[in-house]
Amino acid sequence: MDTYILLFQCRDQRGIVAKISDFIFKHGGNIVTADQYSTDFQKGYFFIRLEFVVGTKPGIKAGLERGLGLIAKGFSAKFSLHDKNKPLRMGVLVSKPSHCLAEILYLWQEKELRLEIPFVISNFAGHAELVKQYKIPFYFIPAESKDRKEAELLKLVSEKTDFLVLARYMLLLSRKFLGAYGKEILNIHHGFLPSFKGRNPYRQALSSGVKIIGATSHFVTERLDEGPMIAQEVESISHKDSLADLTRKGKNLEKKALIDAICAYVDYRVIKFDNKTIVF
Amino acid sequence: MDTYILLFQCRDQRGIVAKISDFIFKHGGNIVTADQYSTDFQKGYFFIRLEFVVGTKPGIKAGLERGLGLIAKGFSAKFSLHDKNKPLRMGVLVSKPSHCLAEILYLWQEKELRLEIPFVISNFAGHAELVKQYKIPFYFIPAESKDRKEAELLKLVSEKTDFLVLARYMLLLSRKFLGAYGKEILNIHHGFLPSFKGRNPYRQALSSGVKIIGATSHFVTERLDEGPMIAQEVESISHKDSLADLTRKGKNLEKKALIDAICAYVDYRVIKFDNKTIVF
Amino acid sequence: MDTYILLFQCRDQRGIVAKISDFIFKHGGNIVTADQYSTDFQKGYFFIRLEFVVGTKPGIKAGLERGLGLIAKGFSAKFSLHDKNKPLRMGVLVSKPSHCLAEILYLWQEKELRLEIPFVISNFAGHAELVKQYKIPFYFIPAESKDRKEAELLKLVSEKTDFLVLARYMLLLSRKFLGAYGKEILNIHHGFLPSFKGRNPYRQALSSGVKIIGATSHFVTERLDEGPMIAQEVESISHKDSLADLTRKGKNLEKKALIDAICAYVDYRVIKFDNKTIVF
Amino acid sequence: MDTYILLFQCRDQRGIVAKISDFIFKHGGNIVTADQYSTDFQKGYFFIRLEFVVGTKPGIKAGLERGLGLIAKGFSAKFSLHDKNKPLRMGVLVSKPSHCLAEILYLWQEKELRLEIPFVISNFAGHAELVKQYKIPFYFIPAESKDRKEAELLKLVSEKTDFLVLARYMLLLSRKFLGAYGKEILNIHHGFLPSFKGRNPYRQALSSGVKIIGATSHFVTERLDEGPMIAQEVESISHKDSLADLTRKGKNLEKKALIDAICAYVDYRVIKFDNKTIVF
Repeated sequence: MDTYILLFQCRDQRGIVAKISDFIFKHGGNIVTADQYSTDFQKGYFFIRLEFVVGTKPGIKAGLERGLGLIAKGFSAKFSLHDKNKPLRMGVLVSKPSHCLAEILYLWQEKELRLEIPFVISNFAGHAELVKQYKIPFYFIPAESKDRKEAELLKLVSEKTDFLVLARYMLLLSRKFLGAYGKEILNIHHGFLPSFKGRNPYRQALSSGVKIIGATSHFVTERLDEGPMIAQEVESISHKDSLADLTRKGKNLEKKALIDAICAYVDYRVIKFDNKTIVF
Repeated sequence: MDTYILLFQCRDQRGIVAKISDFIFKHGGNIVTADQYSTDFQKGYFFIRLEFVVGTKPGIKAGLERGLGLIAKGFSAKFSLHDKNKPLRMGVLVSKPSHCLAEILYLWQEKELRLEIPFVISNFAGHAELVKQYKIPFYFIPAESKDRKEAELLKLVSEKTDFLVLARYMLLLSRKFLGAYGKEILNIHHGFLPSFKGRNPYRQALSSGVKIIGATSHFVTERLDEGPMIAQEVESISHKDSLADLTRKGKNLEKKALIDAICAYVDYRVIKFDNKTIVF
Repeated sequence: MDTYILLFQCRDQRGIVAKISDFIFKHGGNIVTADQYSTDFQKGYFFIRLEFVVGTKPGIKAGLERGLGLIAKGFSAKFSLHDKNKPLRMGVLVSKPSHCLAEILYLWQEKELRLEIPFVISNFAGHAELVKQYKIPFYFIPAESKDRKEAELLKLVSEKTDFLVLARYMLLLSRKFLGAYGKEILNIHHGFLPSFKGRNPYRQALSSGVKIIGATSHFVTERLDEGPMIAQEVESISHKDSLADLTRKGKNLEKKALIDAICAYVDYRVIKFDNKTIVF
Repeated sequence: MDTYILLFQCRDQRGIVAKISDFIFKHGGNIVTADQYSTDFQKGYFFIRLEFVVGTKPGIKAGLERGLGLIAKGFSAKFSLHDKNKPLRMGVLVSKPSHCLAEILYLWQEKELRLEIPFVISNFAGHAELVKQYKIPFYFIPAESKDRKEAELLKLVSEKTDFLVLARYMLLLSRKFLGAYGKEILNIHHGFLPSFKGRNPYRQALSSGVKIIGATSHFVTERLDEGPMIAQEVESISHKDSLADLTRKGKNLEKKALIDAICAYVDYRVIKFDNKTIVF
């Protein structure tokens, strides 16, 4: 049996579930998971994520897509169909802080992340050894040469990745790069957005006197630290905590918020809508 | 428009969603919320909760029930259909601690609890004044007379309630009473079950040296503090916390775990299964 | 025996603890609780809170204050000495939302708040009945008349309160009022500061797409929602949560953050420093 | 300057803080951190942890110990004095699950754990490569040979470690071994103690229907999973979570609870008392 994941969204209207579930039934499928969300209070939109199994046979995916395309047309809907067992390829970009990178590599090796990592790119050469232990290609692109090499970077990531993750990557990606890459990029910000955007969020948090710090994973957009949020994690602090304490505590938050976002993303549980996210 | 909630459960098999959603569509309904859960790893069971709107007309509920009954028969399924706008009647039983009672009454008055409270019954006469302020009937049944009056109690609750909540009620309900009442009873236990069953759970917690305490809302069964759990709440403690501190902190946990359970229950989001609960 | 609480702060230097503890010892006292905090990384400041018991006798407090005054002079320190068993008088100001008010009154009645409530002042007349049940004086001061009556208000609170709490009070207190009152004012803000200052913080949170909401208790200063924070509470939300859900969930956060701040304040566990707080 | 940590405990009585702080003052020291806890409600005991700096000079520690010994004698107290900058040596024992081991090694390398790791011992040979990357000696002791080799094991750990940590070590240490080793051993249990002792705690949790799972770090005693608890971590689960999900979520809890316990232990912030712990 094969497992497929369907994401389907459109203006809310009658009969969508009936149409789709009938289609799946007639193709011999069985719905394993259904998550649905409708917003009438905002913009009257309907979202559904279905996970269903069907018997393996040649051309089945194309057939399903064709049929679903007709249904989508009838509802003026957007949809996408994904083979659950075909892992996405995630390119990793990282600067000097290694905790998110180390967590990703460890969990990937333990098969807790259902994805492929074609390479790790860093402006910090020191990560070469860590990455090599996992037999993953490592590319060192010095910060000063980034602009010059952006075309080269782009070629690398365009061909070999389905999405990128910035696992504490400190360099801004140019608007041009974002446009040319055209796929999703996930970032981890070490602050509780929308507070503490930009540089040194833990220092900002310390000087603000907050009693709880946080980390936020979100999609990258052209506006720094303002893309749709996917996951947030928080932890209590007290007056005793120094900047070093905040940084140390924050690392756990960053790892958790980033890993949660990656897991949700590769499971096709994240839908961007209205500069926010639906996370099924 | 009327809103109905359908709970439907059976052995997992193909076509359930298709059949139900087609039925709703053909009756002019529109699915507003869909929550589905399948367990193949345990017992191969399928559960769905659907919230849908249909145009108001005479006899609509009976008609829906008839049609759904036929579908359920085909799948050997259990189902129930509920009118979302018809509030359940919740009888409240409470002993001396008043924090859960006060929370229930306050939230009910603020219309944050979608239910009716036909009366409050207590073995502590002192609650009369509090309850009276909300214009809800209050019955004082002294502890020593409970057994004698259980028939009377039963008559009261049988006729006027759809379920009961024990909002820190210290007296055991007899097996006979449970059988005769026959409807659901929710309890709040002031300990993190399955630890610290029975009496003085905070004292038990204190002497065990735990660093986190909790409270648990659950269905009442014949076995004390062992019915299916619905919600749990926890909070950190330290060596500095005395029994009085645990009791004080615990009150917030109890209120939250109980209110969450009540809200889930009256929204028909709780399904008992295999001595556990599914909470949509 | 009497219990006193000493707060003492100065530039960090050698011998402070020795001097103070020797003084207490020589007056027949016994230190029950000691909390100390030093910041060398910021401004080299020393803070201590001591709780100690001494035998009751006439003039003991004046004697202790005289002796501690000499020690403080030697260290160029600020200090204050408080009789633990003499409750502070807390004036409550509240607008229409009643959840914080109801929580304060209930806990006060249950003797979980060690303080006196000389009165409740509101620009919403509807709270009269609730407050009356607790036999606490209630003053209705309509919003439109606030400025005109501020002198009257000031007289009321100046004489009868040791501090004020704004338990969801929507009217701004004038700079003049703050200056004339001269004592501490605690506020609860229904947003996770420093995000979402000002009006409609839950609406701001909803439209920002955060995955966690919060509430913040803090001291009032002339700058709206920017005074030193005392306590924060957070809770997870999802895309399913509407503005009404955020408001409902937030009420628990507000109650907890405010009550925690009040308890810490009346226990003399809060020290303002550098636009932040030390909370022992 | 040198930094020392003093732990001092005795029956509560007047003048302890005065005596100790005067002693430190007269030796030219300055108290940096003071944490004190007194229990009159339980057994009338007094505990203090002081961190203080003194000028470096030969024989200073012996001098301090001598003087503190006299003070301790006067109060019938137990005390210990520790050089903050002399890291403890932690022997690591681990079975097949590698997440706690990997976390320890990573944080140790990042200098976030102030301790030395003389070796890692495992009954799973596969960890050799991971440990080797950190240039730490690795000893493979197969499970079946443990008893035979316990004398050898004992010799290894007795000489080279100040305490042991069981970072998911599945083999029981014999009573004889515990007695002969005589120093502290920290364990991480992957369940929320006192619930779910022994084998397969996540499976126990799943079948109990709890809505929150946990992990607990504690001292090892002869009674399995019953030693004084040091830290606990919890996370919410739902009916959707399978055993694999619980295991995956639990790993984060285990890492956090174990690392917190290790950090507290090597900072001398943990005091065992009455089968519980004081964690300053």
